[in-house]
Amino acid sequence: MKKIIIGVMGPGNSATSLDLKNAYQLGQLIAQNGWTLLTGGRNLGVMEAASQGAKSAQGLTLGILPGSNSSGMSEAVDIAIFTNLGNARNMINILSSDIVIGCGMGAGTASEIALAIKEHKTVILLNQNPDSQVFFQSLSPDQVYRVETPTEAIETVIDCLSSQS
Amino acid sequence: MKKIIIGVMGPGNSATSLDLKNAYQLGQLIAQNGWTLLTGGRNLGVMEAASQGAKSAQGLTLGILPGSNSSGMSEAVDIAIFTNLGNARNMINILSSDIVIGCGMGAGTASEIALAIKEHKTVILLNQNPDSQVFFQSLSPDQVYRVETPTEAIETVIDCLSSQS
Amino acid sequence: MKKIIIGVMGPGNSATSLDLKNAYQLGQLIAQNGWTLLTGGRNLGVMEAASQGAKSAQGLTLGILPGSNSSGMSEAVDIAIFTNLGNARNMINILSSDIVIGCGMGAGTASEIALAIKEHKTVILLNQNPDSQVFFQSLSPDQVYRVETPTEAIETVIDCLSSQS
Amino acid sequence: MKKIIIGVMGPGNSATSLDLKNAYQLGQLIAQNGWTLLTGGRNLGVMEAASQGAKSAQGLTLGILPGSNSSGMSEAVDIAIFTNLGNARNMINILSSDIVIGCGMGAGTASEIALAIKEHKTVILLNQNPDSQVFFQSLSPDQVYRVETPTEAIETVIDCLSSQS
Repeated sequence: MKKIIIGVMGPGNSATSLDLKNAYQLGQLIAQNGWTLLTGGRNLGVMEAASQGAKSAQGLTLGILPGSNSSGMSEAVDIAIFTNLGNARNMINILSSDIVIGCGMGAGTASEIALAIKEHKTVILLNQNPDSQVFFQSLSPDQVYRVETPTEAIETVIDCLSSQS
Repeated sequence: MKKIIIGVMGPGNSATSLDLKNAYQLGQLIAQNGWTLLTGGRNLGVMEAASQGAKSAQGLTLGILPGSNSSGMSEAVDIAIFTNLGNARNMINILSSDIVIGCGMGAGTASEIALAIKEHKTVILLNQNPDSQVFFQSLSPDQVYRVETPTEAIETVIDCLSSQS
Repeated sequence: MKKIIIGVMGPGNSATSLDLKNAYQLGQLIAQNGWTLLTGGRNLGVMEAASQGAKSAQGLTLGILPGSNSSGMSEAVDIAIFTNLGNARNMINILSSDIVIGCGMGAGTASEIALAIKEHKTVILLNQNPDSQVFFQSLSPDQVYRVETPTEAIETVIDCLSSQS
Repeated sequence: MKKIIIGVMGPGNSATSLDLKNAYQLGQLIAQNGWTLLTGGRNLGVMEAASQGAKSAQGLTLGILPGSNSSGMSEAVDIAIFTNLGNARNMINILSSDIVIGCGMGAGTASEIALAIKEHKTVILLNQNPDSQVFFQSLSPDQVYRVETPTEAIETVIDCLSSQS
């Protein structure tokens, strides 16, 4: 039976130390809830931190890689999907996630959040960028949630999953 | 020799009447400058208006379609590229445009603008959505231009092309 | 740590009863060896049979779907990747498989086998189509193995994995 | 109005001198008939030769590139589509061609021919590889034509276009 997949999207090189701390904790909480973690699969930034967090809690981790092989892949990825699509793989990240959490902000993350809204996914924003929060909520107020902590993000996931089922 | 391609990205069904008027004029001006117009190729919204504008000035129009055949395609498209990628074709729109003009705003357009910034393209925003302007300029101040009219957009294209070459 | 993924590619509607029997047994054997099964994820043909076989042996199943949601998906898929790429998702199937087994033959399967050869993957052909065997072996004799039974296919996988590591 | 696009698919580095001669002549004839040439856009093999042939007859050339920029692109390409999809861009080549001509044979070309059959496109094979001709005709006898010369290929295109319209 299809497992529940929670996507955590966020910056690579430009992630802040708070983004990384939040991503690690999100990964842990996702694993503890029995969900599968989906990230972009690279060995840096929010992708690496969330994957490491999930493995610290014996979770299952899925990485949707931009390239065609394991170069630059996080060692905390269990299931590696090699797309060779570059940033176009962001669409697969969104479509394959039951719920999308944006942890931090940057151009790549913004494209994923916008695609998630376009594809009618529930989006949870955990960041310190009020401009992004105002803008994305203006695009679709009912789909986009703003939270302050990883714990609040996971509570929102639980609420949304129970209303989806 | 490779032709210069100017991409015009904007909403489909949710385009405003001002977006449509601007898109038509952008298409005309792009054709009059001898450039090729690139759009998402569908027969609605900014895509249709820009393509019609370009044809009114005997321009060459390129449509990067989300589907696998000509269903829903603008009749003003000369060269149809059928991607069957859905909204993932937005990445091709961006990569194939020498300069990207965002005409109007919505979730799909936002994903294209964010991808364009991520891919280091020059972006020109022509819309009535200050939240989007503030947000996208915050992501990359030097790459993103805000303009008020199609004429000003084209002047910016000319300036940027001459500094690129 | 990255799990070993074995891809089983084969026809959907046009699968023969022998293809289906072979696919089910391949799925079982892949699961019994502790590998993850990758298929195109649909609820028909070789995809469905291989996924059901793997689940009968408590394996982990990965489905790389052509669409954007679970419509038409096999219920035996654990991890669903929604690509919305149509048949272009065949490339992801190939790149994400450590070894590719072609079970049966048809136009879609032929495209996957050809891509696998192009991408330097080891390919194992299990079918009753001598024309395909002759042709694909002519493209790359050292990469393409012909086998008669699922058991022989799995023995070949074991040999190839041990020579890769 | 949508232009007629004829795709010429064939090997890059492994093209034979006869493949290159045929490709150049195909490009010329396609241009002389007023059609647009589509290739994979690279500056080698059948792609380069066909594009040069079309330009020698003042045709319009379209290149669907595997990468994200003009590195490695044929200088004979007028309209460059940068996909960053690697070999997955082969699907776009097929979908965007009204008719597909396979000039020469190799693993990449084989994947394109198989996809073209899968997508119900008319395929014309011009090569010296009888194994490939037997195999692809066995997949779909009514869709696949075998020809001996570029002139015969173009006559077949004309017949097929007139029966499609």
